[in-house]
Amino acid sequence: MGKLVRVNMSEKKVVVEPLPDQCEGKGGRWLTSLMVSEEVPAGCHPLGPNNKVVFAPGILTGTNAPNSGRISVGAKSPLTGGIKESNAGTPFPQKLARMGYTALVVEGIVDDDSRWLLKLGVDGGELVPADELKWKGTYEAARMLLDNYGEKTAFMLIGPAGEAKMAMAGIAFNDTEGRPSRYAGRGGLGAVLGSKGLKAIVLDDTGAPGVDPVDKDLFKEGQKKLVDAIQSHDVTKKGGALNSFGTAVLINILNEAGGLPTKNFRSGVFEGAQKISGEAIAEAAKQRGGAGTMGHSCHPGCIIRCSNVYAREDGSEHVSCIEYESSWSLGANCCIDNLDHVAELIRICNDLGVDTIEAGVTLGVAMEAGLAEFGDGPAAIKLLGEIGARTPLGHILGQGAQFTGEAYGVTRIPTVKHQGMPAYEPRAVKGIGVTYITSPMGADHTAGYTIAPEILAVGGKQEPLSTMDKVTLSRAFQETTAFIDSTGYCLFIAFPILDIPSGFEGVVQTVNGMLGTGYTGEDVGAIGKEILQAEKDFNTRAGITAAADRPPEFMRYEKLPPHNHVYDISDEELDKFWN
Amino acid sequence: MGKLVRVNMSEKKVVVEPLPDQCEGKGGRWLTSLMVSEEVPAGCHPLGPNNKVVFAPGILTGTNAPNSGRISVGAKSPLTGGIKESNAGTPFPQKLARMGYTALVVEGIVDDDSRWLLKLGVDGGELVPADELKWKGTYEAARMLLDNYGEKTAFMLIGPAGEAKMAMAGIAFNDTEGRPSRYAGRGGLGAVLGSKGLKAIVLDDTGAPGVDPVDKDLFKEGQKKLVDAIQSHDVTKKGGALNSFGTAVLINILNEAGGLPTKNFRSGVFEGAQKISGEAIAEAAKQRGGAGTMGHSCHPGCIIRCSNVYAREDGSEHVSCIEYESSWSLGANCCIDNLDHVAELIRICNDLGVDTIEAGVTLGVAMEAGLAEFGDGPAAIKLLGEIGARTPLGHILGQGAQFTGEAYGVTRIPTVKHQGMPAYEPRAVKGIGVTYITSPMGADHTAGYTIAPEILAVGGKQEPLSTMDKVTLSRAFQETTAFIDSTGYCLFIAFPILDIPSGFEGVVQTVNGMLGTGYTGEDVGAIGKEILQAEKDFNTRAGITAAADRPPEFMRYEKLPPHNHVYDISDEELDKFWN
Repeated sequence: MGKLVRVNMSEKKVVVEPLPDQCEGKGGRWLTSLMVSEEVPAGCHPLGPNNKVVFAPGILTGTNAPNSGRISVGAKSPLTGGIKESNAGTPFPQKLARMGYTALVVEGIVDDDSRWLLKLGVDGGELVPADELKWKGTYEAARMLLDNYGEKTAFMLIGPAGEAKMAMAGIAFNDTEGRPSRYAGRGGLGAVLGSKGLKAIVLDDTGAPGVDPVDKDLFKEGQKKLVDAIQSHDVTKKGGALNSFGTAVLINILNEAGGLPTKNFRSGVFEGAQKISGEAIAEAAKQRGGAGTMGHSCHPGCIIRCSNVYAREDGSEHVSCIEYESSWSLGANCCIDNLDHVAELIRICNDLGVDTIEAGVTLGVAMEAGLAEFGDGPAAIKLLGEIGARTPLGHILGQGAQFTGEAYGVTRIPTVKHQGMPAYEPRAVKGIGVTYITSPMGADHTAGYTIAPEILAVGGKQEPLSTMDKVTLSRAFQETTAFIDSTGYCLFIAFPILDIPSGFEGVVQTVNGMLGTGYTGEDVGAIGKEILQAEKDFNTRAGITAAADRPPEFMRYEKLPPHNHVYDISDEELDKFWN
Repeated sequence: MGKLVRVNMSEKKVVVEPLPDQCEGKGGRWLTSLMVSEEVPAGCHPLGPNNKVVFAPGILTGTNAPNSGRISVGAKSPLTGGIKESNAGTPFPQKLARMGYTALVVEGIVDDDSRWLLKLGVDGGELVPADELKWKGTYEAARMLLDNYGEKTAFMLIGPAGEAKMAMAGIAFNDTEGRPSRYAGRGGLGAVLGSKGLKAIVLDDTGAPGVDPVDKDLFKEGQKKLVDAIQSHDVTKKGGALNSFGTAVLINILNEAGGLPTKNFRSGVFEGAQKISGEAIAEAAKQRGGAGTMGHSCHPGCIIRCSNVYAREDGSEHVSCIEYESSWSLGANCCIDNLDHVAELIRICNDLGVDTIEAGVTLGVAMEAGLAEFGDGPAAIKLLGEIGARTPLGHILGQGAQFTGEAYGVTRIPTVKHQGMPAYEPRAVKGIGVTYITSPMGADHTAGYTIAPEILAVGGKQEPLSTMDKVTLSRAFQETTAFIDSTGYCLFIAFPILDIPSGFEGVVQTVNGMLGTGYTGEDVGAIGKEILQAEKDFNTRAGITAAADRPPEFMRYEKLPPHNHVYDISDEELDKFWN
């Protein structure tokens, strides 16, 4: 039976409870969305005493199922005003699960400006005053944690942006080498922890009992099928697209499809795309040598290894990692084609503890407002510095793209439910637009990654510019994704399991083996649907209606080059997603 | 038959059309809310090309019915995201109506940073480039208009805050002496005009045909009844409360009731209340002499005369006028008890073209965030200066209280639907809370002024701390008010007509005399209900649900001294307002 840790920041109390019955057999997003729905009043102020942050490793996290080291974090979002689940791949939840913890809930708020650190061991935890970490960037704070608690310590950290309660603040976890670089980035969850005064969590897994599947044979059978599928698919295999070039392999692909949002979503083509592409990152790793490397993993057990470490010209480590979304948001979207500038922008984001997607979309809107010129990397670096310095301008930018646009009366604000749109232009790829628009999370590509069939011909081939059946397509992806986000599996297993039926069987078998359940393939969609519905219901209670399931108005009347489409899936069609 | 002026800012065209049939016999809020509902897509960006600003004099405006010189301005609000009607008393709509114009609609947006002035005469209008007015404060701009178009010119102006598209920007109209001091202040309508590039309107009423009641005798009969009622009621008669002390006579009354929001809604009692009260303003007028005067009127035909002109120590004019809401918001709510500081804050607000209520509530939140000390008048003056200088901090403050609170992670933000609460504490006066919470306008005391029975014993006596029947009370007030806001009558006629039945008869008779209709007393409520429902429906389409009909969360758990009540009308009870 699992355990639940409740950390009350008002009372400075840490209590370990048995996992409630209705939480048994759940994990990841399933569990965070369920608990947030049940325990957080939908109308509460996201930074007030009634919001809660729920951490949950996936169902399989802590096992040796491949790529299963993800943790979900849930709360009411200060960015969207709705429910939020954001997840990251990191050793942290693997330890947490092996220590016997199914979920960790942070409640209450501090009533002063103090900072706290949660030390959690197998037998319970304690809150320790941590004012020495106050306003520390995540790199310095991580170093202090590793010095104090050992190089192998798993940790969670928020940066200064979270402490300043900025809505673009994410939550950082350690990677396999102790970098604070693995982010549950989206939706401002770092700000919620900031309001609670919880700067860090460190895990001491001494004596951890580990995680045991109920049906080991079934588990192993499924595990093998999934490993085989991952290792045989072109996207995920060793030496495949992700392993060789990282996720930024998508830069050139989306650019060629006319779907790479450029200059604050003014065009789908970026002249400088090649210079910030995965190929360019790989080339730099080869040319510069030193710390630079491709094929890096974010947690033990990852066999895709799409992460990277980017080095400066002198070979010293600059940042890990340059993801597609970051290279796009801080690069193409701002017309910045200098990879060293992009790397520096990512490094600053990581240090401040902010979501790189929201940061880049915000910089695009700031450039639109005239606060810097498009393409000016040093000016963009300076703008992020304002966030760190907590100037008034930093307080504007730190609240995200929608907020920045509102501060300056901008009408071209590429957001849904106040969350910045990721790296795929909905006017050029209509299905991903449905996902952005209908997801309870706000604009989020990971909520239903229709890019797979629309751009990559994975799981079939769909015409990106067509509006046909895109609501149905997005719904199928969103349901399956909600399930995958509950397992602890990295979403990238979707590539092989969409194309290789035995891979999908493997996923279901590992879950059944782990839990002793008898879920079928159909149950995957049904469970996903149930999760989505709980999230949607929370949002409805929070006052988020169909009127928020809409693209930004400018996408209805501004045509996007080079295809010159507006977003033309009608409101009525979009409403069918939930009806 | 009335005429409609359509001003298209995209095409720089001015067209006069016959009034559509469904607009005949309507005026003021009835007409603005109807036209906004029909012509503005509820989901549009408030500052984008699809929003429209509708100006409409009241049904009786332009006649010599007493106190009938009000104009309604409607649009989708950039502050609340919902429909907005804001009204002001000024000679402007009296001229507009006499020129034969029932409504004026401003459509489209400019696509550059140009400014325009609309010259409107009896035979039509033209848009004139007005870059010479760009970023000019309203006092200087008004002087330029009067110099160019004559001292008797009626004008509308927006200030620099509107040009900067700030959501606390209002719309200024001239008073009887050409001051730009009469405001349709609430809801950021100045920013909508800013997005349209329309800095000013001037009226040339040469050859105006005037306004003629259909049934002159009935009109006169009603007019006499209403004049008699106004002149015999203690609140509104010559030498009565409003005439002697202005609206700020309420400062001491609300303070004694424990309902004067103080220190960003932390208490209902302000130690320095007396110093910023109507009595103090009247005393200053007596002591200082010079320009200072009480009993000033905002438009010809006003027989209540509650306005004032406040003088500096040397007798020179400082500002007109110090209203209760302004003295409260910029005074008590910020713990500022120096009337000269309050006057200067109001003067700056007028010059910038911002709503004094939103400005004061915003300063209270800014003080909460630590941007200045409560009680520090010079610091508050400096903060307003940031708005004028359009610094990043100015862009935060200029967007209002909710925005400022969000920028700094404040949880004590006294707003409903993002609009700052006015000068009556809902925890101490429960019925006005229902009005704040349920009005389609956001927190607005004028939408249903239950203060009359709850505090002033006008129209019966209701216990302010009681929750009993307050939804019913507020509904009755909101319905009647929506009707009064359509007539052009000043809302202060409500005091006499609540207590004196013949006064109410007079209101109905003047309307019937004007239009040739046969409305009864019951129709008043029915028409008001119809207006409210149209506004509510717009908001629903804009995505504003029952979840937005809620008090700020902190009022649910923080007790307000001295009565130590939370806001305890339940969500279920509040939902009955619309169900």
